[in-house]
Amino acid sequence: MPDQTSHKPSGESLRADARENRERILRAAREAFAAQGIDVPVAAVARRAGVGVATLYRRFPTRDALVTEAFAEELTHCVSVLDEGLADPDPWRGFCTVIEQVCLMQAVDRGFTQAFLTEFPGQAGFAFERTRAEERLALLVQRAKDAGGLRRDFDPSDITLLLLANCGVAVGSGEEAAAASRRLAAYLLHAFRADGATPLPPPASLGLRDIAQ
Amino acid sequence: MPDQTSHKPSGESLRADARENRERILRAAREAFAAQGIDVPVAAVARRAGVGVATLYRRFPTRDALVTEAFAEELTHCVSVLDEGLADPDPWRGFCTVIEQVCLMQAVDRGFTQAFLTEFPGQAGFAFERTRAEERLALLVQRAKDAGGLRRDFDPSDITLLLLANCGVAVGSGEEAAAASRRLAAYLLHAFRADGATPLPPPASLGLRDIAQ
Repeated sequence: MPDQTSHKPSGESLRADARENRERILRAAREAFAAQGIDVPVAAVARRAGVGVATLYRRFPTRDALVTEAFAEELTHCVSVLDEGLADPDPWRGFCTVIEQVCLMQAVDRGFTQAFLTEFPGQAGFAFERTRAEERLALLVQRAKDAGGLRRDFDPSDITLLLLANCGVAVGSGEEAAAASRRLAAYLLHAFRADGATPLPPPASLGLRDIAQ
Repeated sequence: MPDQTSHKPSGESLRADARENRERILRAAREAFAAQGIDVPVAAVARRAGVGVATLYRRFPTRDALVTEAFAEELTHCVSVLDEGLADPDPWRGFCTVIEQVCLMQAVDRGFTQAFLTEFPGQAGFAFERTRAEERLALLVQRAKDAGGLRRDFDPSDITLLLLANCGVAVGSGEEAAAASRRLAAYLLHAFRADGATPLPPPASLGLRDIAQ
């Protein structure tokens, strides 16, 4: 009987295989969530990744773990976009840049917005990053108002209004959705300017969580 | 054996019953379509109306007939809103009034937008009214531009952009959806003004039919 041990993968290549499987699953999950939202069945993600459901569950014991891992990088990117906006010496320009970038991220990947707004009990890392993002967003709004760029009657719920509207226009292919989102963001940013602001009806009673509905 | 004929409904009360049934079905259809869109199963409409499916089909032989009849009144109202806008001596004010009202109609009844944008072969009356509405809308845009109220770079696709955005913010109860829609319409109408217009990215390649997706 031949010695099988020489054919067994070494510890290192096992780890490399595991890493590759993990990356493949996360890539498939991101694609599936972007196209169909985060409620896609786990089995569909496994099929797309070309792995068995058991393998997927071995790497990601819960759906929440899969979703939060899939979006961890994008959430970190979102926080860094906010940090750049806050670092802009012109608070209004910083605000506009963030809104434009967040709208684009949302337009091309609807799963991310959904993930951002969903509570994942037990995924403390994700919740921590999200809180950081929300705090920075509030700061960005305040700075732009204080500097006189953003109209005084801009309400925190208007961020939600903008994101819901942006979600509405993000139809068709990625490029079409991005074009519609850019045009809408430009119109709304113009309307948010303090210069020449005209009276508005009262703000809607919207919170960020309304987007996840 | 007693004479039963005296208990039979007269021709007049039969017609009244039929009319009442018809009205009850149309009311149920409008409610169902407003809440869940026009793809609601016909059986669900019959259940809501408290009639059998056979009765429903006797009054409305096809789903298209049911949908177009249910929205006929609203479409006529829409055309009259456009006529009032066109009759306004101030073309910009006329444009704003129409946009505000159309957004509100859409926010509280998503079925109507869907019906408006769906082709119903064989429902010539509905198609005729819709064409009238689209022509008036194009005229309203042109008048508001010519009068210098609406920005020159406003593109016909921006009407679609507005309706898609409005559809996106119409979440929650009717009152909440209406409040969000009013706020969004006010922001966008401000951004559509020719005064102080700032440059925009190119228009999106959107047509009204994109809303029905």
